[in-house]
Amino acid sequence: MNMSIVECVPNFSEGRDLEKIEKIVNAFRNKKDVKLLNYEADENYNRLVVTIIGKPQEVKNAVFESIGVAKDIINMNEHKGQHPRVGAIDVCPFIPIRDISMEDVVELTKELGREVNDKYKIPVFLYEESATKEERRNLATIRQGEYEGLDEKLKNYEWKPDFGENKKHPTAGAIVIGARKALIAYNINLDTDNIEITSKIAKAIRYSSGGYRYIKAGSVEIPEKKITQVTMNLTDYTHTSMYRAFEAVKFEAKRFGVNIIGSEIVGLCPMEALIDVASYYLGLEGFSLKKILETNLME
Amino acid sequence: MNMSIVECVPNFSEGRDLEKIEKIVNAFRNKKDVKLLNYEADENYNRLVVTIIGKPQEVKNAVFESIGVAKDIINMNEHKGQHPRVGAIDVCPFIPIRDISMEDVVELTKELGREVNDKYKIPVFLYEESATKEERRNLATIRQGEYEGLDEKLKNYEWKPDFGENKKHPTAGAIVIGARKALIAYNINLDTDNIEITSKIAKAIRYSSGGYRYIKAGSVEIPEKKITQVTMNLTDYTHTSMYRAFEAVKFEAKRFGVNIIGSEIVGLCPMEALIDVASYYLGLEGFSLKKILETNLME
Repeated sequence: MNMSIVECVPNFSEGRDLEKIEKIVNAFRNKKDVKLLNYEADENYNRLVVTIIGKPQEVKNAVFESIGVAKDIINMNEHKGQHPRVGAIDVCPFIPIRDISMEDVVELTKELGREVNDKYKIPVFLYEESATKEERRNLATIRQGEYEGLDEKLKNYEWKPDFGENKKHPTAGAIVIGARKALIAYNINLDTDNIEITSKIAKAIRYSSGGYRYIKAGSVEIPEKKITQVTMNLTDYTHTSMYRAFEAVKFEAKRFGVNIIGSEIVGLCPMEALIDVASYYLGLEGFSLKKILETNLME
Repeated sequence: MNMSIVECVPNFSEGRDLEKIEKIVNAFRNKKDVKLLNYEADENYNRLVVTIIGKPQEVKNAVFESIGVAKDIINMNEHKGQHPRVGAIDVCPFIPIRDISMEDVVELTKELGREVNDKYKIPVFLYEESATKEERRNLATIRQGEYEGLDEKLKNYEWKPDFGENKKHPTAGAIVIGARKALIAYNINLDTDNIEITSKIAKAIRYSSGGYRYIKAGSVEIPEKKITQVTMNLTDYTHTSMYRAFEAVKFEAKRFGVNIIGSEIVGLCPMEALIDVASYYLGLEGFSLKKILETNLME
């Protein structure tokens, strides 16, 4: 029996229109061997993040269908939002969860990329483990210039898409697809509305400007709460733990007289990452996952 | 298919002699439908805590066998240890884990009590949910006077055992058996060797002297490390969380200039209890167990 399971977390550029959001999410409902775990729409980001798990081919097919839906109802020429994005379907990361190798998930993403370009004529960039060039590994590099800068970017031969021509889709832009390790999307809220302070904190902790190896970070305003947020991807929680990101933000914020007022996990989080947090704060000695009741029931 | 699962955490009064410890633990090895999850021997306590899960009857039978082994190799007249105890097999709590009611587990403990007294002639007290009198619910009350006080205690008609006569077993003392909810055995280490301070802290947090409703606590010396320990049972972690016990010990210790240097969980701990700790320290907003990847895989 094939028990392979992959996770996919497609990000769509629509976080405000509930009707459109439901249309996209419907592509993941009532599909055999696909489980819709979660979806969260963010008004400020104007972005929808869906989390599904299931059998590899079935997950791929559902994502393919959702891309068709999103392409028809999202017009990037009218899209505004705080989160960087390069297309109507901005990014589709696939993550191996059980009984499947990273190589097989890379293959799966390439199949999807080819099919998406064939049918929907959206140019596809492969990233992370699926990247065909080292400089395409990093999503931020591919996304640089965002949707609005795509025409300019695609004039550069260096940026020929992995599938498709050097020409954006007129309303859907481009799409980034790839296989990657499980990451944690983690945001920390600060009691300041000063985005410059928050940007400085984000820079202090992220790898790209000298911070922790497995933290990607940016800053976002949450105007309706009059606060700002350090928005992070923890790309390897086994090496850069959540508590470390939390404590680092706390001590960086302190120099500005700013405090953490809460945090949130977007999408799913592996149990181990949170257990590690509890273990740190309680100073647990001699602890292992074996001591968790549920770990033993699952075997 | 009967998927009922119970947990049992028998406590034996031997924490130093490895050969004897192995003999006892062997009763839980290679038993069909019984899984030995963990065993920890503590030299200062001179006590062995075993954790097993499995099908109800099979768990009961393995515990019955282990009681026979322990009775033959432990002589309570020679036993010294820091942890209160009333017999060679001090206490056997049974906990419903899955697809079994508390009532059914109470029945199981009564069967075991009867069989233990019939075969091994050890007097049995039923406690917690299995208690036949309200004043026998609490293990500490049954254990008052410990092994050394048993002769005196059993002269009192009020203390007629639930199974057996008013006479202790000459080397094994008495045994306490019962069904209860899952508890967390949690110890916090302090950087003081002053046991009086640690006792004051234990009293400040425990229910019996005015503290938290679901904390039982005492104090123990760890002479080889020159430290002391607040030893706790959290009898309902859904109402008195681990972080609350931890923070309460921390702030009580502060008035004595004493600090927490670490903590430990003895035996098993439900995942939810640790997730709650992580959630508190990170100030997680909008979090639920559904956001944990493994929770979704288990369904």
